[in-house]
Amino acid sequence: MIRLATVQFTPRLGEREANLEAIQKLLDPVEAEVVILPELCTSGYFFVTREVLAPLAEAPGGVACVFFQRLAEAKRAIIVAGMPEVADGLFYNSVFVFRPGVPEPLIYRKAHLFYKERFVFEPGDTAFPVIRDERLDLSIGIMLCYDWRFPEVSRVLALDGAELIACPSNLVTDAWRKVMPARAIENKVYVAVANRCGTETRCGETLLFKGCSAVYDSYGEPVALAGADGDRVLLAEIDPRPCRDKRFNEFNDIFADRRPELYGAICRKR
Amino acid sequence: MIRLATVQFTPRLGEREANLEAIQKLLDPVEAEVVILPELCTSGYFFVTREVLAPLAEAPGGVACVFFQRLAEAKRAIIVAGMPEVADGLFYNSVFVFRPGVPEPLIYRKAHLFYKERFVFEPGDTAFPVIRDERLDLSIGIMLCYDWRFPEVSRVLALDGAELIACPSNLVTDAWRKVMPARAIENKVYVAVANRCGTETRCGETLLFKGCSAVYDSYGEPVALAGADGDRVLLAEIDPRPCRDKRFNEFNDIFADRRPELYGAICRKR
Repeated sequence: MIRLATVQFTPRLGEREANLEAIQKLLDPVEAEVVILPELCTSGYFFVTREVLAPLAEAPGGVACVFFQRLAEAKRAIIVAGMPEVADGLFYNSVFVFRPGVPEPLIYRKAHLFYKERFVFEPGDTAFPVIRDERLDLSIGIMLCYDWRFPEVSRVLALDGAELIACPSNLVTDAWRKVMPARAIENKVYVAVANRCGTETRCGETLLFKGCSAVYDSYGEPVALAGADGDRVLLAEIDPRPCRDKRFNEFNDIFADRRPELYGAICRKR
Repeated sequence: MIRLATVQFTPRLGEREANLEAIQKLLDPVEAEVVILPELCTSGYFFVTREVLAPLAEAPGGVACVFFQRLAEAKRAIIVAGMPEVADGLFYNSVFVFRPGVPEPLIYRKAHLFYKERFVFEPGDTAFPVIRDERLDLSIGIMLCYDWRFPEVSRVLALDGAELIACPSNLVTDAWRKVMPARAIENKVYVAVANRCGTETRCGETLLFKGCSAVYDSYGEPVALAGADGDRVLLAEIDPRPCRDKRFNEFNDIFADRRPELYGAICRKR
């Protein structure tokens, strides 16, 4: 069994040092092989100008990257953290994955931008990554928040071998709570949503983040569940091995039964 | 508003005449523009040899086709009915769609075969059809039962313009009840599941059909819902027009936001 820590955390907008300290404190007592933090967990969420975002944006070797890599080494844990990224002068809403013994983080850049994110972030240009960890015998797929709306994302991750889908989030709606269990069932995988709570106000507009972080098993049942409020670490033990076998009776296999020749409309540009 | 009748019905295995009579009786008092009946509603479900199935299989001009076309004309209603089909000596688990004023039914052949269906049926070779009805100003997408497990099916239907997805079913599991609301939300469409109840026994094996037929609105909320048992007609009034606008704020549109160039794995044969 693999110990999974899914962190519900309320960052302070624009205060990276304070956020890293708070994350350190939350994770100090935690023993886990995989840690999942929310989207933009070092910076807060609501940015509408690049000037305000820029000092908080990360690149490999940056303040938060160094912090998380050290934490990954100290805990011997994979750490999945949402952070703003800067690369070649462009900004992305990204997930960084830190692995013990692997100095360079893997980066996923959010493919589907929500609401005013487009004011500051570029649409992601990375594929949807699946990280294979031989030590844990686990494959983790990465998506971000609004990606939940697109069944294509978790499908691509599962087809590429993901047994656990990690979804750092800053969710401001509730509809995802009806859909994430379906993502687990339709792909026969675990799904972990690390969401944030609290509010942020910018230019007179206030966003309320909805918490309710959850880990769903491959039947769509919550094996760990947080409330709408409060920072906390959800602990769950998961066994990814049954997720590799997509059969559910002696005749049906939900992947072998697929008919990709009939799905062309999904991959067609309009 | 369009009046939709979703029929939960328990056919008698192998008794086409009795089933057509029972359907006639159920629908006699119903006024609706669209009627959706379960999978294999004229024949029952559990066939393991083609010899037993053959006398019940339909083709345009067959007994049940004539019955349903007359009913469609009399009620001025579109009728969506699951039936076994025979064509060129091969059998399909099909949906026939009968329209007033259109003598030839449209046929969808089930793409994803469940359990022992492969003993008698060929895998479907039709596309997933969307029927545009100008009189009702409505587009109906057709899928069948186990197709629910594949997010690709409802996605293709919605991308092709479906505002209502009709899903005749003979469901023997419960997982679909967590997933069908997600199909409605992720595509912003209505979903109507016409399921059957009762049991069937063949070669010492008994299947229990789970009822709970439902119509979900585009927020995944049930606007009509049946119990696990009992034949009945669920009536719902639906307004498909809002389903055409896939925006949900001034920046996001769940179809325009798609990134098909990143979804290639879904359409790739393995």
